[in-house]
Amino acid sequence: MAAKRRVRGRRAKEPGLPPGTLVYTGERQTERVRLQLMDYGPDRLEERDLESVQESLPFKELPTVTWLNLVGLHETAVIEEIGAAFGLHPLVLEDILNTRQRPKFEDHGDYVFLVVRTMHYLEEKRDIRTEQIALVLGRNFVISFQEFEADPFGAIRDRLRTSAGRIRGAGPDYLAYALVDAIVDHYFVILERIGDHIEELGDETIGDPTPDTLRNIQTLRKDLGHLRRSVWPLREVASAMERSESALVKESTGPYLRDVYDHTIQVIETLESYRDMISGMFDTYLSSVSNRMNEVMKVLTIIATIFIPITFVAGVYGMNFQHMPELAYPWAYPAALGVMLIIALAMIAYFRRKRWL
Amino acid sequence: MAAKRRVRGRRAKEPGLPPGTLVYTGERQTERVRLQLMDYGPDRLEERDLESVQESLPFKELPTVTWLNLVGLHETAVIEEIGAAFGLHPLVLEDILNTRQRPKFEDHGDYVFLVVRTMHYLEEKRDIRTEQIALVLGRNFVISFQEFEADPFGAIRDRLRTSAGRIRGAGPDYLAYALVDAIVDHYFVILERIGDHIEELGDETIGDPTPDTLRNIQTLRKDLGHLRRSVWPLREVASAMERSESALVKESTGPYLRDVYDHTIQVIETLESYRDMISGMFDTYLSSVSNRMNEVMKVLTIIATIFIPITFVAGVYGMNFQHMPELAYPWAYPAALGVMLIIALAMIAYFRRKRWL
Amino acid sequence: MAAKRRVRGRRAKEPGLPPGTLVYTGERQTERVRLQLMDYGPDRLEERDLESVQESLPFKELPTVTWLNLVGLHETAVIEEIGAAFGLHPLVLEDILNTRQRPKFEDHGDYVFLVVRTMHYLEEKRDIRTEQIALVLGRNFVISFQEFEADPFGAIRDRLRTSAGRIRGAGPDYLAYALVDAIVDHYFVILERIGDHIEELGDETIGDPTPDTLRNIQTLRKDLGHLRRSVWPLREVASAMERSESALVKESTGPYLRDVYDHTIQVIETLESYRDMISGMFDTYLSSVSNRMNEVMKVLTIIATIFIPITFVAGVYGMNFQHMPELAYPWAYPAALGVMLIIALAMIAYFRRKRWL
Amino acid sequence: MAAKRRVRGRRAKEPGLPPGTLVYTGERQTERVRLQLMDYGPDRLEERDLESVQESLPFKELPTVTWLNLVGLHETAVIEEIGAAFGLHPLVLEDILNTRQRPKFEDHGDYVFLVVRTMHYLEEKRDIRTEQIALVLGRNFVISFQEFEADPFGAIRDRLRTSAGRIRGAGPDYLAYALVDAIVDHYFVILERIGDHIEELGDETIGDPTPDTLRNIQTLRKDLGHLRRSVWPLREVASAMERSESALVKESTGPYLRDVYDHTIQVIETLESYRDMISGMFDTYLSSVSNRMNEVMKVLTIIATIFIPITFVAGVYGMNFQHMPELAYPWAYPAALGVMLIIALAMIAYFRRKRWL
Amino acid sequence: MAAKRRVRGRRAKEPGLPPGTLVYTGERQTERVRLQLMDYGPDRLEERDLESVQESLPFKELPTVTWLNLVGLHETAVIEEIGAAFGLHPLVLEDILNTRQRPKFEDHGDYVFLVVRTMHYLEEKRDIRTEQIALVLGRNFVISFQEFEADPFGAIRDRLRTSAGRIRGAGPDYLAYALVDAIVDHYFVILERIGDHIEELGDETIGDPTPDTLRNIQTLRKDLGHLRRSVWPLREVASAMERSESALVKESTGPYLRDVYDHTIQVIETLESYRDMISGMFDTYLSSVSNRMNEVMKVLTIIATIFIPITFVAGVYGMNFQHMPELAYPWAYPAALGVMLIIALAMIAYFRRKRWL
Repeated sequence: MAAKRRVRGRRAKEPGLPPGTLVYTGERQTERVRLQLMDYGPDRLEERDLESVQESLPFKELPTVTWLNLVGLHETAVIEEIGAAFGLHPLVLEDILNTRQRPKFEDHGDYVFLVVRTMHYLEEKRDIRTEQIALVLGRNFVISFQEFEADPFGAIRDRLRTSAGRIRGAGPDYLAYALVDAIVDHYFVILERIGDHIEELGDETIGDPTPDTLRNIQTLRKDLGHLRRSVWPLREVASAMERSESALVKESTGPYLRDVYDHTIQVIETLESYRDMISGMFDTYLSSVSNRMNEVMKVLTIIATIFIPITFVAGVYGMNFQHMPELAYPWAYPAALGVMLIIALAMIAYFRRKRWL
Repeated sequence: MAAKRRVRGRRAKEPGLPPGTLVYTGERQTERVRLQLMDYGPDRLEERDLESVQESLPFKELPTVTWLNLVGLHETAVIEEIGAAFGLHPLVLEDILNTRQRPKFEDHGDYVFLVVRTMHYLEEKRDIRTEQIALVLGRNFVISFQEFEADPFGAIRDRLRTSAGRIRGAGPDYLAYALVDAIVDHYFVILERIGDHIEELGDETIGDPTPDTLRNIQTLRKDLGHLRRSVWPLREVASAMERSESALVKESTGPYLRDVYDHTIQVIETLESYRDMISGMFDTYLSSVSNRMNEVMKVLTIIATIFIPITFVAGVYGMNFQHMPELAYPWAYPAALGVMLIIALAMIAYFRRKRWL
Repeated sequence: MAAKRRVRGRRAKEPGLPPGTLVYTGERQTERVRLQLMDYGPDRLEERDLESVQESLPFKELPTVTWLNLVGLHETAVIEEIGAAFGLHPLVLEDILNTRQRPKFEDHGDYVFLVVRTMHYLEEKRDIRTEQIALVLGRNFVISFQEFEADPFGAIRDRLRTSAGRIRGAGPDYLAYALVDAIVDHYFVILERIGDHIEELGDETIGDPTPDTLRNIQTLRKDLGHLRRSVWPLREVASAMERSESALVKESTGPYLRDVYDHTIQVIETLESYRDMISGMFDTYLSSVSNRMNEVMKVLTIIATIFIPITFVAGVYGMNFQHMPELAYPWAYPAALGVMLIIALAMIAYFRRKRWL
Repeated sequence: MAAKRRVRGRRAKEPGLPPGTLVYTGERQTERVRLQLMDYGPDRLEERDLESVQESLPFKELPTVTWLNLVGLHETAVIEEIGAAFGLHPLVLEDILNTRQRPKFEDHGDYVFLVVRTMHYLEEKRDIRTEQIALVLGRNFVISFQEFEADPFGAIRDRLRTSAGRIRGAGPDYLAYALVDAIVDHYFVILERIGDHIEELGDETIGDPTPDTLRNIQTLRKDLGHLRRSVWPLREVASAMERSESALVKESTGPYLRDVYDHTIQVIETLESYRDMISGMFDTYLSSVSNRMNEVMKVLTIIATIFIPITFVAGVYGMNFQHMPELAYPWAYPAALGVMLIIALAMIAYFRRKRWL
Repeated sequence: MAAKRRVRGRRAKEPGLPPGTLVYTGERQTERVRLQLMDYGPDRLEERDLESVQESLPFKELPTVTWLNLVGLHETAVIEEIGAAFGLHPLVLEDILNTRQRPKFEDHGDYVFLVVRTMHYLEEKRDIRTEQIALVLGRNFVISFQEFEADPFGAIRDRLRTSAGRIRGAGPDYLAYALVDAIVDHYFVILERIGDHIEELGDETIGDPTPDTLRNIQTLRKDLGHLRRSVWPLREVASAMERSESALVKESTGPYLRDVYDHTIQVIETLESYRDMISGMFDTYLSSVSNRMNEVMKVLTIIATIFIPITFVAGVYGMNFQHMPELAYPWAYPAALGVMLIIALAMIAYFRRKRWL
């Protein structure tokens, strides 16, 4: 089913609708929309689940960093409210809701808009589900938009709570970096799983390939293609973030952004090497299958070929001519058998010498 | 037939004719040329079907936005009149009529000239028909040139009539954007259809591939190649529009143009992933066919190989030697049958152990 | 033979010879060198066949545009004379004579030097002959150098004579543009022919491929490769012409040069799409051939496989054991035949169920 | 096992951990961490094995060049101490410990940070083990971090001791260059080994290919892919070093850095040519195997085909019809044998004429 | 053997040796090192074989152009002397001796350093031997370093002696250009030979391919790959020379350098087209071989298939049942033969209708 959605690339918006029309293009993934707020400074932290967007407005005025995390995109009214409250462009809101977006980085002056994709590996189905995550980084706030309940940001919340590292002391740009970093780091987990899967398939391909092996190779290839389309643009995003001259990104965050960029490159290279491996596996598969087939055919043909001449000899002495002097000799039968044996052995010897056996 | 036109790349113009010679290179698609005019401002809208180009001249003088839509390109005189009335370069007129044009963006100072291609999916033939659409964006007018009756701009006309969104309040550059956006959005509809088609073919390829499957794969590949040649240059067009420093494109239209660009990229990426899938399908097809063939050959050869040795045994006892003591033993016949059975079973066991069965 | 010349890439010049040594590297294509002169202004036109280069000198002094067209390159003395008369660099002269030149554009300050290639489609041989055409554009003259008699510039001469379009009123840069444009337009004619050829081959490939089909595919592929090497550098030439800041190229010629560039791109894209088609055809060919072979093998093997077991049964009852009770039963023979029939039918049923038949 | 580690791309760091968390991602390769210090100037050299990082601090203050070499990365506390002592950024420390780093060059102002990879060829396993080497170049010090005991820098230590060449007189940038140069030079040794291996495999492929040959080709291809991923980024590193405008790199070191860059290019080109060779070998292998198979099948089929018609003749005269006049003729048996012989010879002649034999 | 050297990419220098260590990495190609000197101006020419480098020093002081040509690189002391006499950087000397150098262009301020490769076609072995040629262009001298005796510069020496063209009047930059031009021109000779070889192979591939054909195709492919690696960097060298802003290269030499660049591009394009041809030949070979095999298999299988059913009929009447009424009929035997004939003819007719025959 996930595969289907991928192939179709469905897009609910009708051609010709005005831009900024808010339509959620994904499937409803969660019961109700959740609004999680964390407001923190070096020496304070307030954490709250909000009932409405309005509750977040007072925090916006505080000098501290406000992180608003929205889970579930199916209530477009909530998105619209956030857009109004934080002054977001209608096209930004459209992009948040259109979950088939390519990862991108847009500097809108007052705020920076980021779209990235995270991945969930569904162990039981060996399938990958992608989720679009949109981030808005403002002067003193970060808003993150998630489709699913699954929380990729738990560790960051813990760091905020325990005030681990420099996160509480740094600004919203560092928080945005940390969120993106968590997503990129998560790719390595996915890659590890895929790597294990490739390894198994590789052993299978050399050892005992079946048509199923081929199907798995093809599925893996498709999955990697899919992953690749999510990760390649991420490279541009990471690079755009690093090179951004937005006043919202402090210089001290620079090395961290470069680090994210490096990790993205690493993910891409691992992906590319996986693709190479799968290509090689496909070749190996084809050649394994054909080797095995060849072996079967060869042995069988050789058996047939040995028996054909001696069956002919038997046929000759099965003829009913009245004048076949050999038939009367007492030693003729064993002689005939002997001739057959010699023919068979000679052929086997010939095949061996030719190294066909 | 559409395919033929594509392959031949026919071009009516004779080598050596002066540039700007107006020759319509397509086929006459419509009974007569239609001229549709819409003139609008924030608080007015006039809609009219014109009899001649002259009727549009007064609107040109008004400060409001004038949209002149021409359907049917076979009357070159009309094009020439428009060219004279709006001061278009002879090469621009030639390009409008030469419907094998590549999508392009040209800034002519007083006006901007755009060529894009839209697609029509002919459901019954599973074929794609492309149509060239030329746009001229002037200081207070937009002229669009269509080949066919089929109207890709209905939704925009409705938005103008109902004054939905910001379209009535914005200038001609926004109208031009909206027209291009409608065309790009239409690609997603085409892609969805192709995606469905790919899915069906994919199932067929794995399940029960026939030579027809191959033909369909090849046709699809050719269609995608065709689509690709229309869409790739569109990317440059979208990018040129966005980066254009023409005074005709207002800054506030910028984000919308960037949005069109993003969508174009998305179309291209979907196309590329379809191409990958079709490549994979071709490999799967070949390997499916050969797997099936191999299975047939293997089983048949095994049957033959089991019978060949035991047929030989039968042949031996069919020989007419007078001195074959075995023939006289009463238990010889059942023994011979038994030997044959043992040979057959031994071979089957051997094949099984070798995993050829 | 044309193919041979292509493969060898012969080049008469010995390594180490001084540059500027004038050696004609093509084959003598015409009886004698022809010098055609046209001198024109908005209101005058003089057309003449010259006996010697000297006759052209007075025209050089006139303010009108002088077009000197030379057909046949085998008399190097004539080239040298022209070089001296018009002040061309020795390397330019060498390039004119070395007909294996890559298309190029060189700005020599006082004049601009262009090398392009035109194509002649030899209908009877389905072969393509290429011809190098060199152009020198000076302040008030254009010199063109052709190898063959075949005249690609007839239509331009007619336009000059009838004063059609703006050609008589424009300068030598416009004439140079018109010459190049005629050559590029001629490519479309060639492409149309090749397109027809591809279509025929495509039908043949799907319908009834023979080893000849393969040879034709390979030849076409080679021809396209050849064409491609002529056209790709033309793109750079067209682009260099357009971007040139030479004082010899007037600004008003700009849009025309951009038009040539666009056409070149169109030629290249058509070529690339032809290459894709031929690649696809090669795949289809291979798979058609193997499909047909598979079908043959399958049916034949099935026939053999049906008869092998029943032949075995016949062999069993052909054995000469004295104690074979079945042989005496009156119904044994029809029973044996019946068993054979049942075996054969069972196998056919099995094959059908397995969908091998 | 080395292969496994490569496939999995394991990465111990949990997503969401704060950046700069020091976790060593490799396997513990050495008993205990070793700290080797060399401090030298044109006329002095002090060499010492340190017990703790603190011992190195006095040398840091001297104007002479200090080279601190650390072997073994599993004690993160030591790395942290070095970081504190030499003022390294936490992300740099993280990169030193994350041994799956891509080669890179980072200018941190006060110091320059380099990551490169060296290779160890494990002769017995025909496997390649890669090791990450991190370098920090400061104003008057160089720190190098190695994973394994194996010492790639022995020759440089000797040059320092014997004061060979200009190394003692030059600054720390020259030392850093020398270290990188030693690593790049080591690639040539690895390439030589691989080259030998390719040669052997090439002979095997043409002579007597077995399924093992294929496996070896695939392994080699994978190894080269791995090597390639280490070396390609090295190119950027070398180029970044050369173009660096860091005050830490003196101008006189420029030509040496360019030399390293040239060598890197040479390594890459050799690698690429090896890849080409292996691709060619794969094609040759497939075609060798199929040629051999074809030969087997052909000869065997021919044998079968010769005997089938003559066995039929024997079958005819084995029929038990009462009225078969031939059976009674005394010359019938030799005549039948003669006919069989003629048939066999005619078929062989036919096969020969068709060049199938 | 030449191939071996290529594969191994041997490199004598040990990792870690100081840069500038002079080790000759080639094989000693000539008995003793030869030093040829030519000193010339517009009106003088002195030619001499020197015994030692010292003899050249007085010429260095003259304002005339001094060309020092060294043949044989195995005496590193001579190279060192030249380095000292002409003030060359140690790395330049190392590069001269390391004959596995990539073609390159380095501007060292006082002199320009060039490495190019020339080729020798060994007719008898159909093998290509490459030779590295290093050039140093100074203010009034050119030094060339050759490995082998074979003289690629004979024609230039003749031009100097006979004062042909502008060579004697021009400066050392023109001499350097002439040397490089001679080398590039020599590639055309090599290409012509390879072209002939490709043509022969092409005919063989279509006509009567043998496994040897394949081997030759693969060798040719490898040779072209080798050639390609020599020529591609030459392109950068030619381009660097042309764009060089060194005071040593006079402006008037510019067009000549551009000419060399053009020729290099031409060599590269011919190479690429050869590679395409060889790729196509490989495909044709595979398909030829498989076509032929298919034909063999088809005809043979058909023969077998025709005889199998009729042999079965013979088997039936060879059964020994006592109650087979047909056996007694006098017309039974000819009837059985007739049935067999009809079966055989029917099968042939069927095969013909299916176009398998």
